[in-house]
Amino acid sequence: MSKQKIKVGVLGCTGAVGQKLISLLEDHPLFEITAIAASENSAGKIYKDVVNWLEAKDIPASVAGMTIQKCLPGLDCKIVFSGLDSKVAGEIEQNMALHGYVVISNSKNHRMVDEVPLVIPEVNAEHLQLIQKQSGQFKCKEGGMIITNPNCSTVVLCVSLFPIYKCFGLSKVVVTTMQAISGAGYPGVPSLDILGNVIPYISEEEGKIETETLKILGKYDSGAIKFASIKISAMCNRVAVKDGHTMSISFETERKASKEEILKCIEEYNREVKVDFDVLRYFDNPARPQPLLDAAKGKGMTVSVGNLRECSVLDWKMTALGHNTIRGAAGAAIINAEYLLRKGLV
Amino acid sequence: MSKQKIKVGVLGCTGAVGQKLISLLEDHPLFEITAIAASENSAGKIYKDVVNWLEAKDIPASVAGMTIQKCLPGLDCKIVFSGLDSKVAGEIEQNMALHGYVVISNSKNHRMVDEVPLVIPEVNAEHLQLIQKQSGQFKCKEGGMIITNPNCSTVVLCVSLFPIYKCFGLSKVVVTTMQAISGAGYPGVPSLDILGNVIPYISEEEGKIETETLKILGKYDSGAIKFASIKISAMCNRVAVKDGHTMSISFETERKASKEEILKCIEEYNREVKVDFDVLRYFDNPARPQPLLDAAKGKGMTVSVGNLRECSVLDWKMTALGHNTIRGAAGAAIINAEYLLRKGLV
Amino acid sequence: MSKQKIKVGVLGCTGAVGQKLISLLEDHPLFEITAIAASENSAGKIYKDVVNWLEAKDIPASVAGMTIQKCLPGLDCKIVFSGLDSKVAGEIEQNMALHGYVVISNSKNHRMVDEVPLVIPEVNAEHLQLIQKQSGQFKCKEGGMIITNPNCSTVVLCVSLFPIYKCFGLSKVVVTTMQAISGAGYPGVPSLDILGNVIPYISEEEGKIETETLKILGKYDSGAIKFASIKISAMCNRVAVKDGHTMSISFETERKASKEEILKCIEEYNREVKVDFDVLRYFDNPARPQPLLDAAKGKGMTVSVGNLRECSVLDWKMTALGHNTIRGAAGAAIINAEYLLRKGLV
Amino acid sequence: MSKQKIKVGVLGCTGAVGQKLISLLEDHPLFEITAIAASENSAGKIYKDVVNWLEAKDIPASVAGMTIQKCLPGLDCKIVFSGLDSKVAGEIEQNMALHGYVVISNSKNHRMVDEVPLVIPEVNAEHLQLIQKQSGQFKCKEGGMIITNPNCSTVVLCVSLFPIYKCFGLSKVVVTTMQAISGAGYPGVPSLDILGNVIPYISEEEGKIETETLKILGKYDSGAIKFASIKISAMCNRVAVKDGHTMSISFETERKASKEEILKCIEEYNREVKVDFDVLRYFDNPARPQPLLDAAKGKGMTVSVGNLRECSVLDWKMTALGHNTIRGAAGAAIINAEYLLRKGLV
Repeated sequence: MSKQKIKVGVLGCTGAVGQKLISLLEDHPLFEITAIAASENSAGKIYKDVVNWLEAKDIPASVAGMTIQKCLPGLDCKIVFSGLDSKVAGEIEQNMALHGYVVISNSKNHRMVDEVPLVIPEVNAEHLQLIQKQSGQFKCKEGGMIITNPNCSTVVLCVSLFPIYKCFGLSKVVVTTMQAISGAGYPGVPSLDILGNVIPYISEEEGKIETETLKILGKYDSGAIKFASIKISAMCNRVAVKDGHTMSISFETERKASKEEILKCIEEYNREVKVDFDVLRYFDNPARPQPLLDAAKGKGMTVSVGNLRECSVLDWKMTALGHNTIRGAAGAAIINAEYLLRKGLV
Repeated sequence: MSKQKIKVGVLGCTGAVGQKLISLLEDHPLFEITAIAASENSAGKIYKDVVNWLEAKDIPASVAGMTIQKCLPGLDCKIVFSGLDSKVAGEIEQNMALHGYVVISNSKNHRMVDEVPLVIPEVNAEHLQLIQKQSGQFKCKEGGMIITNPNCSTVVLCVSLFPIYKCFGLSKVVVTTMQAISGAGYPGVPSLDILGNVIPYISEEEGKIETETLKILGKYDSGAIKFASIKISAMCNRVAVKDGHTMSISFETERKASKEEILKCIEEYNREVKVDFDVLRYFDNPARPQPLLDAAKGKGMTVSVGNLRECSVLDWKMTALGHNTIRGAAGAAIINAEYLLRKGLV
Repeated sequence: MSKQKIKVGVLGCTGAVGQKLISLLEDHPLFEITAIAASENSAGKIYKDVVNWLEAKDIPASVAGMTIQKCLPGLDCKIVFSGLDSKVAGEIEQNMALHGYVVISNSKNHRMVDEVPLVIPEVNAEHLQLIQKQSGQFKCKEGGMIITNPNCSTVVLCVSLFPIYKCFGLSKVVVTTMQAISGAGYPGVPSLDILGNVIPYISEEEGKIETETLKILGKYDSGAIKFASIKISAMCNRVAVKDGHTMSISFETERKASKEEILKCIEEYNREVKVDFDVLRYFDNPARPQPLLDAAKGKGMTVSVGNLRECSVLDWKMTALGHNTIRGAAGAAIINAEYLLRKGLV
Repeated sequence: MSKQKIKVGVLGCTGAVGQKLISLLEDHPLFEITAIAASENSAGKIYKDVVNWLEAKDIPASVAGMTIQKCLPGLDCKIVFSGLDSKVAGEIEQNMALHGYVVISNSKNHRMVDEVPLVIPEVNAEHLQLIQKQSGQFKCKEGGMIITNPNCSTVVLCVSLFPIYKCFGLSKVVVTTMQAISGAGYPGVPSLDILGNVIPYISEEEGKIETETLKILGKYDSGAIKFASIKISAMCNRVAVKDGHTMSISFETERKASKEEILKCIEEYNREVKVDFDVLRYFDNPARPQPLLDAAKGKGMTVSVGNLRECSVLDWKMTALGHNTIRGAAGAAIINAEYLLRKGLV
């Protein structure tokens, strides 16, 4: 391609999300990594010498020899992807935005801030209009902004339910998650805790799912988001799966619909919203989707649902699945950046 | 002890439930295995020569050398525990009951039959009055009867909810199960299907949970069970756990109660119903119960619950756990037999 | 490409190896699947309707709708890849060869037959000269032949040791394998047997490794293979890994060599033999290779070794790893066919 | 019992080995825990408030409410069991011994010190005579001493091989271990590293096995140990098993023996050395021992071997297994203390 790629940086480049970002951005048609940054401990060192590389593919040659920089303005790039730990992400991301960087953040810190868009482009791209609001509020230099993507479970839930929400409305959702260990980062979950086990608790996770979903499914109206009014209850479990959050979802629609109508609505959504992968796929086989077989569908970007059946408490129940570190984290950030670029917002 | 033990037989002695029965009945204070029976293929052979013994403890010496018999009347025992496959259990169990045996069955075949008690003694022992009805209906010889215990998941759900149901009533329950592989018997689930995976489907399981629970929590009234009127919805998943079904339960009570009232009700139930083990234990730690740590509590007979918290759709949510092959199968059958004996019903 | 592809068939198309063959042959530059065959049970049915598809990627569209045929002459193809069970492979493969098909077999049946080449092209391609011998012996029609690839563990061991054997000779090898569950096919290993466990036994596996290796590392001489004279001892274990056989290898060389010399010999071999993937890769990191990270290297065709260190009993020890269903089975068969084609032997 | 129990303390009481010691010492017939100690961070706090209790059974009531003390003289006990981390164990254990405590240590620090016995009572109890040497050397107060037990893998290897060594001599041993995650303590191995994986490396482990074994199988002679002269090579792997180190062992005896002679020698050893559990058990079934089924045999104190068969490189090969945190750590320390007591050495 003769077209020049956009220069991007990765904040938190040695962490699990940072590694996945670097892995997914290799040979990306639009973006080129020109800067990587991490904590003071790693700054000044060569990437391949300090990273505990966890991806199955090798470190991209173009990044392996790069010197890690500090997470400060001065990075030679326009967009920074942030995979920073939430303990430090807040201040660093604001600082970068104030200095004119487009911050695409996977951290939880700014997700629920009023003027920060919390975006899944296939669901609520119109929330990006908040950027205008943001510029004033944060007093960013021209072009600086913060765009966030949701918690890994929230993404899967929102994509699964969005077409149904759009077509029939949703009043109540009860979701039980069975989440993969990669969602906890590295070293994350000790093997003694999870091998042959279920941990029925993930700190703060239920709250994130219950609140982020309402923002995402909310309406942009005159510079603000009006949250959706759905009752959502989440119960979160960790299971011995490497990648892929599986969910048992029960939901009540506002307008009653038949199974055929719901499946048709999912199918149409997938057809309309489709970029270069299936955004939402329905499986006829009641035993699908499964993380081992289906998390990597669409290079990890496809959310899968299956086994839609009547529920005797709410209206319907089904299984949903998405790849937590791709669709739910690094890939979610990248697709946000791609969208901004495509719409000329960057 | 000078008191003579009751002679018992095990039908389906080579299967997974049969093995667990034989294992749990070793050195039992009330029962002594005097007969073991299985299919025609195994009949006539020595137990230790044909069984693919899966228990961690050795085959009890008293059983190892026994000759396997056919599943027909003629077994030298008063009670027969049935761990038979449902394909054959129906006819065999009826035949044994007709010939005067007390059949304590773990199979699904007779559970929902009107005059057959489906019993968890700590929950609905009064249903055993159906036995009188049964004698007539089945035209059993004196003493012959069929008593069933519930599906492994149903037991855990019923014990978890029973004190709450008794104190406050229940109107709605949404339960998502994460079930152990041992629940599928042997060879059961292929390792390629479950290692590092979740299978969001277990054939017929959701229906069993939804219907059996209503019978168990129902009222005995004039020779029949009046089913409980609770809306129950189950979503069942298989996870890579050896023993112990974990559940995320959301429920709505008829009369509103505070967290303290619910915990007090659970505690009092456990104190009152306690035999020689805790029947229901509450964990303060929100990350408990866990199958690896807690399934074997009370020698596998204790059901554990934890993390009771408010639910934004129904009233409350919590985690529950029970050992599926002990509390949910072999141990459930044995405790039924113990109860019958203690009450002089056998 | 304007060049026409060679028509190939897959025998045992519904089994695990058959599925992997179909998966790997999708969009293959040289081959096109024009026939699929399986047992009488499946014959006459549409592939997608009967196969229990286990691959993470979808059934290739070109195969999904094909009708399964019987494993008999009459298939419209030149080459047949056989993933048949060894119980039936012997007769069927001979019959196909006699009728002029080039049989590329993954089954054990003909591997140790004198006139059948047991080939890893990067190791002993010259053994293919046995084909000439074979034509006479088997009285095949013109063009009919049987080429076999080794047992999955044997491939990994042979590729790992081959450059060392060539450079320095080998007198003794002790190898302990930790083999993946996919090596046992489907349903294969019951999850109750392997989850959180090691099974220190795989039927016949040790013998296969010990004998096949001697044939493969043997010399073709005047129409026969003179077996290598290495003492090989294998101890085989099954572990809870999905794909990738890991091995701890201890070996004694005939001519003594330094660590640097051995590493150089491995590196040179990889450089010389390299097709479009690394055939043998050495890891500096002593904790590598690992199945989860490295089995898929080179699209599953790269064998990896690491942690070469002195052994106090034999001379050296190291870790080796290869993808058992690709490098050790389906991919091994395909690379054999590719080699035949490239050399004009088909 | 009217007999008074010996007061014992546990150093490193919050760690994994400390917890196992506390768990195993509950209701011990000879010992009573009267003091628990840990690092400064925990000292002064109540045990149950700070420990991240990992055992399936509850914290023994007698210990749960104890105040944790510092690892200094002043503890009210005669014997201290040390489960301290090796970073601090050296100094602390010496200090305790100098102040008159009998230190039974599971740490590596003093194992290879000349005058410190490295003991498995069923193998080399006579090494305890080193205590006399020690008293002088260390200038301990009367009664102070340090007794160590071996690395978890070394124990299993030594018990497996000891009867064969005693009967026939050993010249060479090649052992590949497949070690459980509990061997790495807590949090230990990250789940992302081991779920569905093998890690072919455990830091320092091979060296410990190769050197400790020679000391243990050595001869006490005039106040010193003459090391055994066996060539031992170990290759160590971590596998996804909770408890139980499995080993593939190949060995060469000095005097040739038949399979029957070896099995008889193992059997006689077990009969002679037997305390209240089988010390070494042979399985006829070639697929045994397995960690899931056999690690807990003899309450975790039985070492199991199986599948003895000829080796084409050395003489014989077999599988061995032992429970790494009981037989290989906490239980090993306790049995050392029991032996000292029984022999009147304490």
